[in-house]
Amino acid sequence: MTLEYMDTLDRVDAYWRAANYLSVGQIYLLDNPLLTEPLRPEHIKPRLLGHWGTTPGLNFCFAHLNRIIAERRQDMIYIAGPGHGGPAAVAHAWLEGTYSEIYPDVSQDATGMRRLFRQFSFPGGIPSHVAPQTPGSIHEGGELGYSLAHAYGAAFDNPGLVVACVIGDGEAETGPLAASWHSNKFTDPARDGVVLPILHLNGYKIANPTVLARIPASALAKLLEGYGYRPHLVEGDDPAVTHELMAATLDAVFDEITAYRAGRTDRMPMIVLRTPKGWTGPHSVDGLPVEGTWRAHQVPLAKVRENPEHLAMLQAWMRSYRPEELFDAAGRPVAEIRETVPAGVLRMSASPHTNGGLLVRPLALPDFRDYAVPVVEPGLVLTEPTRVLGRFLRDVIVANPRDFRLMGPDETDSNRLSAVFEVTGRAWNAETLSTDEHLAPGGRVMEVLSEHLCQGWLEGYLLTGRHGLFNCYEAFIHIVDAMFNQHAKWLDACRDIPWRRPIASLNYLLSSHVWRQDHNGFSHQDPGFLDVVVNKKASVVRVYLPPDANTLLSVADHCLRSRDYVNVVVAGKQPVLDLFPIDEAITHCTRGLGIIDWASSDHDGEPDVVLGCAGDVPTLETLAAAALLREHLPALKIRVINVVDLMRLQPPSEHPHGMSDLEYDTLFTTDRPVIFNFHGYPALIHRLTYRRHGHAHLHVRGYKEEGTTTTPFDMAMLNEIDRYHLVMDVIDRVPGLGATAAHLRQRMSDARLRARAWTREHGEDDPAIRDWTWPAA
Amino acid sequence: MTLEYMDTLDRVDAYWRAANYLSVGQIYLLDNPLLTEPLRPEHIKPRLLGHWGTTPGLNFCFAHLNRIIAERRQDMIYIAGPGHGGPAAVAHAWLEGTYSEIYPDVSQDATGMRRLFRQFSFPGGIPSHVAPQTPGSIHEGGELGYSLAHAYGAAFDNPGLVVACVIGDGEAETGPLAASWHSNKFTDPARDGVVLPILHLNGYKIANPTVLARIPASALAKLLEGYGYRPHLVEGDDPAVTHELMAATLDAVFDEITAYRAGRTDRMPMIVLRTPKGWTGPHSVDGLPVEGTWRAHQVPLAKVRENPEHLAMLQAWMRSYRPEELFDAAGRPVAEIRETVPAGVLRMSASPHTNGGLLVRPLALPDFRDYAVPVVEPGLVLTEPTRVLGRFLRDVIVANPRDFRLMGPDETDSNRLSAVFEVTGRAWNAETLSTDEHLAPGGRVMEVLSEHLCQGWLEGYLLTGRHGLFNCYEAFIHIVDAMFNQHAKWLDACRDIPWRRPIASLNYLLSSHVWRQDHNGFSHQDPGFLDVVVNKKASVVRVYLPPDANTLLSVADHCLRSRDYVNVVVAGKQPVLDLFPIDEAITHCTRGLGIIDWASSDHDGEPDVVLGCAGDVPTLETLAAAALLREHLPALKIRVINVVDLMRLQPPSEHPHGMSDLEYDTLFTTDRPVIFNFHGYPALIHRLTYRRHGHAHLHVRGYKEEGTTTTPFDMAMLNEIDRYHLVMDVIDRVPGLGATAAHLRQRMSDARLRARAWTREHGEDDPAIRDWTWPAA
Repeated sequence: MTLEYMDTLDRVDAYWRAANYLSVGQIYLLDNPLLTEPLRPEHIKPRLLGHWGTTPGLNFCFAHLNRIIAERRQDMIYIAGPGHGGPAAVAHAWLEGTYSEIYPDVSQDATGMRRLFRQFSFPGGIPSHVAPQTPGSIHEGGELGYSLAHAYGAAFDNPGLVVACVIGDGEAETGPLAASWHSNKFTDPARDGVVLPILHLNGYKIANPTVLARIPASALAKLLEGYGYRPHLVEGDDPAVTHELMAATLDAVFDEITAYRAGRTDRMPMIVLRTPKGWTGPHSVDGLPVEGTWRAHQVPLAKVRENPEHLAMLQAWMRSYRPEELFDAAGRPVAEIRETVPAGVLRMSASPHTNGGLLVRPLALPDFRDYAVPVVEPGLVLTEPTRVLGRFLRDVIVANPRDFRLMGPDETDSNRLSAVFEVTGRAWNAETLSTDEHLAPGGRVMEVLSEHLCQGWLEGYLLTGRHGLFNCYEAFIHIVDAMFNQHAKWLDACRDIPWRRPIASLNYLLSSHVWRQDHNGFSHQDPGFLDVVVNKKASVVRVYLPPDANTLLSVADHCLRSRDYVNVVVAGKQPVLDLFPIDEAITHCTRGLGIIDWASSDHDGEPDVVLGCAGDVPTLETLAAAALLREHLPALKIRVINVVDLMRLQPPSEHPHGMSDLEYDTLFTTDRPVIFNFHGYPALIHRLTYRRHGHAHLHVRGYKEEGTTTTPFDMAMLNEIDRYHLVMDVIDRVPGLGATAAHLRQRMSDARLRARAWTREHGEDDPAIRDWTWPAA
Repeated sequence: MTLEYMDTLDRVDAYWRAANYLSVGQIYLLDNPLLTEPLRPEHIKPRLLGHWGTTPGLNFCFAHLNRIIAERRQDMIYIAGPGHGGPAAVAHAWLEGTYSEIYPDVSQDATGMRRLFRQFSFPGGIPSHVAPQTPGSIHEGGELGYSLAHAYGAAFDNPGLVVACVIGDGEAETGPLAASWHSNKFTDPARDGVVLPILHLNGYKIANPTVLARIPASALAKLLEGYGYRPHLVEGDDPAVTHELMAATLDAVFDEITAYRAGRTDRMPMIVLRTPKGWTGPHSVDGLPVEGTWRAHQVPLAKVRENPEHLAMLQAWMRSYRPEELFDAAGRPVAEIRETVPAGVLRMSASPHTNGGLLVRPLALPDFRDYAVPVVEPGLVLTEPTRVLGRFLRDVIVANPRDFRLMGPDETDSNRLSAVFEVTGRAWNAETLSTDEHLAPGGRVMEVLSEHLCQGWLEGYLLTGRHGLFNCYEAFIHIVDAMFNQHAKWLDACRDIPWRRPIASLNYLLSSHVWRQDHNGFSHQDPGFLDVVVNKKASVVRVYLPPDANTLLSVADHCLRSRDYVNVVVAGKQPVLDLFPIDEAITHCTRGLGIIDWASSDHDGEPDVVLGCAGDVPTLETLAAAALLREHLPALKIRVINVVDLMRLQPPSEHPHGMSDLEYDTLFTTDRPVIFNFHGYPALIHRLTYRRHGHAHLHVRGYKEEGTTTTPFDMAMLNEIDRYHLVMDVIDRVPGLGATAAHLRQRMSDARLRARAWTREHGEDDPAIRDWTWPAA
C-alpha cells in the first residue's frame, strides 16, 4: 500500500468490514450480535432469507464513496441497482447513524444491533431488499433494469449532485438498463448533476454467468466507450490491493467529473468493478466452491441451525471481520469508523434528495382558466384538447424553469402539445444539424424513443422532489406496466412511513388513444392500461377521462397540484366538441361526474333510460345518440351522464373517490336501463359497479378488441360504440316503445350499413357524421 | 460504376425504383396507377396515411438482398423493424408475385396495381404497417423494439437460414432492442442460422433526431464492436454510388457469414446503412427541407388533392422512377425486374419460415401420465408441482431436440424445473469458467436476465414453426405485457387470414407466484398479468391454475399440443398437497372445474355454502377451511369446487370455454353463498361471473395488494385468503348457524391473532399450519 492512502484506507477497510459484518448478521442472527459468546443454533434465524452475493460489493462502494464525500464535501446519493442486497444499504445507514435517528429503537449500540439483525427479512420487520423503508434510497430492490434511468432522473436539474449508481451485471442484461446508458445524450453539464455508473461485474446472476462478465475485456471497453463513457477498471480479490486501486481510481474519476462539469471533456467517467460474488464470504461449502460463483447469490451457508459445521463456518466468517476492532463493548462503531462518516446531509443515507418530499415545492401554476376555450353554446364547436393543454403546459414550464419536465417517446408534437416548443427545447447533448429544430441542452422536454426511459427518468426526478408529466400514445404505455406497478407499490408503502414526505404525483397523459388510431391500425389500439392501474391500491391511483378541452385543463391543474398519486389522464388530440364553459368544467371535474342537462330530456322526472359515458369519443357518440333519440322519440326521457373521474363509480369502501350508493342510485337509478359508453374495455365498468343496486340494468359498450386500419367512425362501429348502435341498444332495453321505435331501430341499422359503405367507397367518414355537432336550439 | 456490378446493379436499381414507385402509389393513389394520364385530384386518396420516410431504405435492402439470394441461393427472411413502412413490404411481395398468388384479386397487372394502391390504409383494405396480412412477415410494424429478438428467435435451430433484420435508428433507442444485440452470445453457429442486422440510420424518428445517428462514427463503431459484431458502413445519398457500395458490402458480408458458419471467426458481420430519410422523395416542400429530415417521416406532400403544386410535385416524384421502364403497358413488371426475383420459396415474401404453420410439426410428447405422482389418498402428501413438471419437460426436450426451447430469465432452476439440466444445457456462446455448470452452445434452455428477450426470442421461434415454453416469476411477467398484447393481436388477426397456418401456442408458466414471494417482498407480489390477458380476444387466450402436480402435468400436455393460443399457466414451485390421482386430474382438467367430493359434505343434497377456489395456495387454504368447518359445524353442508380453467367461469357467449348457465347454476347454485378464494385480484372473478344468476351471493377473496417480506401464511392472512378467515366468511354469510358458529368465529379470529404472533416471535409459520394436511379418514 502506498503511503498516500495508508491511513485512509485502513479506515475505509474498517468501515467495509463493519458493513460486511452487519450484513452477515442481518441475514443470519437472531441474537448474540457481537459474538460475545460462541454461536449457538438458537442465535440463528429459522428461515435464512437474504442475498449475500452482491452485498460486499455494495459495501465496498459505500465505504470508498464516503471517503470522497468527506474529502471533497461532494453532495452525493447512491442507487443500488442490485437492491436485493438490502443488508448493505441498511448496514450503511446504521453505521452513518441515520438509521437510529429515524428508527430510535434501532439504536447505535448492542441493543440496536440486535434489533437491526432480528428485524431483517423477519415478519413484522423490514423487507429483505432495499425498499422505501430504507433511508437514503429512491430505488426499490425488486424488479431489475431501472437503476440507471432513476439515477439520471435524480441528476437532472441538480447541478451540484453526483449520483453514484451501482449496476449489477445481471441487471445490465435487461432492456431498460441497456437503453439507459444513452441517457448521457440528454444531460446538460451546466444544469444537471453527474451520474457515475459503477458496473459491478461479480460474474453471475441467480444461477448463470452474466453476459458482460464473459465478453472479452476489449469488447466491454469498446461497448462502454461506444455508449459515451470513459471506463475505469477496478479489478481484484485481494482487499488491500483492491482498496488502493479503487481509491486511486475514484480520485481520478472525481477529477474527471470536475473537468466534465467545467466543459473540458464531454465524456463522463464510469467504473467497471470486477470483484468476486460473495467476496470475503465462505470460499467453499460442503466441498463446492461458493465465493466467486453463483452459489454465493443468496445464503452461502444454508443449514446453520442444523449443521454444526455450518455454524462454525458462520462464526469464523463473521469473526474474520474482526468485530472487536469495529465495535466497542457497547456495540457502538469505534471512533475510527464514526470519523469516516460524512456530516449531516452529506451522509448518503440522510440525503434529502432521497426523500424528495423534503425538497419538493409547489409548482407555480398559471391560472388554467386563462387558457379555456370560450363555450357560448355547448356542443357546437370542435377543439383539439391537447393543443389547448399545450399552451397551459408551456406556461407551466416558463414558471418552473428548474423543476418541471415533460417526458415523451418522441410524441410531444404528435400529441399536439407543440406550444411548449415556443419556450423550450428538447433536451439534447449530441450532434446537431442546421435543419434540426427545438433541440437544446437542458430543454424541458425529454424525448427518447423509449417509454422505459421516459418513465424511469420521471420516477427519478419525482422521487428527488420535482414535478413532471409523461405524455404517451395510449397503447404503448403498456410497455411500462411493470414500472408503473413498482412505482405504485413504492407510493403505497410510503404511506406507512412517516418520515417519507409526500412527493409530486406521477402524471400520465395518454393521448393518440384507441379511438383515434384508426390510421395506425390494430397494434396501436389498446386501452387496457386502466385495467392494470386499478389493480393497485385505491389510495394511490386516480383515473380521469376529460371529454373536452376545458375539462382537460381542470383535470391537469388538479393533477399537477396533487401528491403521492399516480394520475392517469386519457384525452384526445383530435378535435372534439366543446361541452363545458370553464366554470362548469371545474364543477364537473370536482364532482367527477354529472348530468349533461342540455343533452338530457328528463328534467321533469325520472328518466326512461340513462346514457352514461366516459372518454371523449364515447361521449361524442353518446351525445349524437341522445340527439337522435330526442328527435325521433321525443317522448322518451333521456338522462345523459358524463364521468370524468372514473373512480367515482366504485363504492366509497373501495376507493376514496367512490360515491355513496344514494348518490349513485339518484344519478343512475336502480331500475332503469343504463347504456354506458366507455373509452376502454367494458369489463372495467362492470368491475367498478358490480355492487351497485342497478347493476343488473347496466349495459356497457366499449372497446372489444376489434380494430384495423380504417376510419374513426368505422372503429366506433366495429366496436358498437357508435351513435346508431347506442340508439339500437336503447330501443332494445326500454320496454314499450312501440312501432315508431321499431322503425327507428331499422333506420339505425340501415344507417350503420350506409356509413360503412360510404367509408369503403370514399376512404373517409361521411362528413355528415364526422362533422356532427349538437343541433342548434 | 465498376464493370463487375454494372449490369446487375442496373437491375437492382430498376427493382428499387419499381418498389419505390409502388410504395408512393400505395400512399397516394386511388386510380391512374401507371400515370397513363396526368394526375388529377380525384386520383388521390382523401386521407393520406402511411410512412414514406423509412420506405426507400427498406426497399433498398430488399432489392440488394434479392441479388444475394439469387446468386447464392441463400435461404433468407426479412424482418422490417421499421414496419410502419408497410408499403415497402407490400410492394416487394407484389413484385415477387407472391402477393398475387395469395390475393388473386390483386393481380400482377394494371388492374391489380390499382387495387394494390387503393386497398392500402383504406377502410376494408389492408393495414398501413407490416401486419399478419403481409406475406413474408413475422413481425408486426407497430410497437417498436422487438425486431432483433424476433430475428434471433427465427434463426435458432434453422442452420441454413439468414435472417436479415433492418433496425430503425428510432427503434434502436428502445430498451428491448438495446438488449437484443447481445443475443449473439446465445447462438450456436453449428445449429442456428445467422442474423444479419442492418442498422438503418436515416437520422430521425417522428420529430427528433436519433441517438445513434448523432454520436461520432467512432463511438458507433465501438458500440457495435462492443456488442460483438463487425460493422460495415454503407453511407450515401447518390443512388449509383450507394448501390455499388451496398453490393460490394453485401458480398463481403456474406463471405464473412460463410466464415462464421465454418467457425473461422466468432464475430458476426452487420451493416450500418446511412441514407437520407425519405430518400428519392421530395427534396423540399413549401420552402422547407423534407428529404433527409423528420418531415419525411409520414406523408411528405400533405395537400395533394387541394394544392395543384403538390399534385404536380407528386406526379414529378412518381415519374422520377421512370415507371415506363419498370412496367409494361399492361402494368406487369418488365422482364428485367422479374428476372431478379428469386425462385419459389427463396422469395423472401414466400418463405415458409414466415408462415410457420406450414413447417410446424406436432411435438413428440412422452405420456405425461408416466410422470404422475401416486395419490393413494388425496390431501396427505406434499409435492413441488414444477419439480414434477421439470421431469416431463426434460423428456420433451429429449424427444424434440431441434424444435423445442425453454425460455426463462435465469429462473429455470429457481422455478425448480432443474431436471431439464440432466439432458441439456443453457445456450451459451461466450466465455466459460471451470466452475460453470450446464452451459452449452445450442442448449435447449435459454436464460438471459431479460423478460423482453425471452419473449421476443420465443415469439420469433414460434412464428417460424417451432415450440416453446416461457417460465417466469409471476410478478415480472408484467414486463412483457405490451409484447403479449401485440402477439395476441397477431394471433387474433391471423384467424381471418386463411393462408396463415396455425402455429404452436405461446405458453407461459408463471411460478414463484404472489403467495410464495413472502421472502422477496412486496415488489415480487403481483398476480395482475391475468387481468391483462383476459382483455384480449377470447379466441386466443387461455388461463389455467392447476392446484397440484398431476393437474399441472395434464395442463402442460394440453398446452403443448395446442395451436394459436396464448396459454397462461400459474403453478407454484413450493410443496402443495397432492389432490388428484392422475386419471382424476385428467378428468378435472378436461372439465376445467369440478367438485372435490372428498372435501365436500353435501352429498345428500344442496349445499348450504359453496367454497370455490382457483390456484394452489388458495385451494389449500380452502381445503383447510373446509376441514375446520366439517369438524366444528358437522351439520353444515359444504361444497368445495376447484377451478383449473379460469375461462370456464365466463358465459359461453364470452369465451368458447365458458360453461352454460345451467351448468354454472348446478355447480354454484343460484342462491347459496359462494366464498371464492382466488389466486389473483378478486375483481377478475367478478368480471368473469357478473352475469351469473348467483352473482349477488358471490364473495371473492384474493390478493388485495397487501404484502411485504414475511411468511407464507402471514401473506395469506394479510390478504384474508387464509383458512381462518374463510371460515369466518362462511359464518358471516350462512344464516341461522347459531351459537356454535358464533363461538367458532371467535376461535378463528383468535387463531389468526395467535398465528400472527407466532410468526412475529419465531420468524416462521407455526408448523401445525405450515405442514397441515387433510385429516386422514
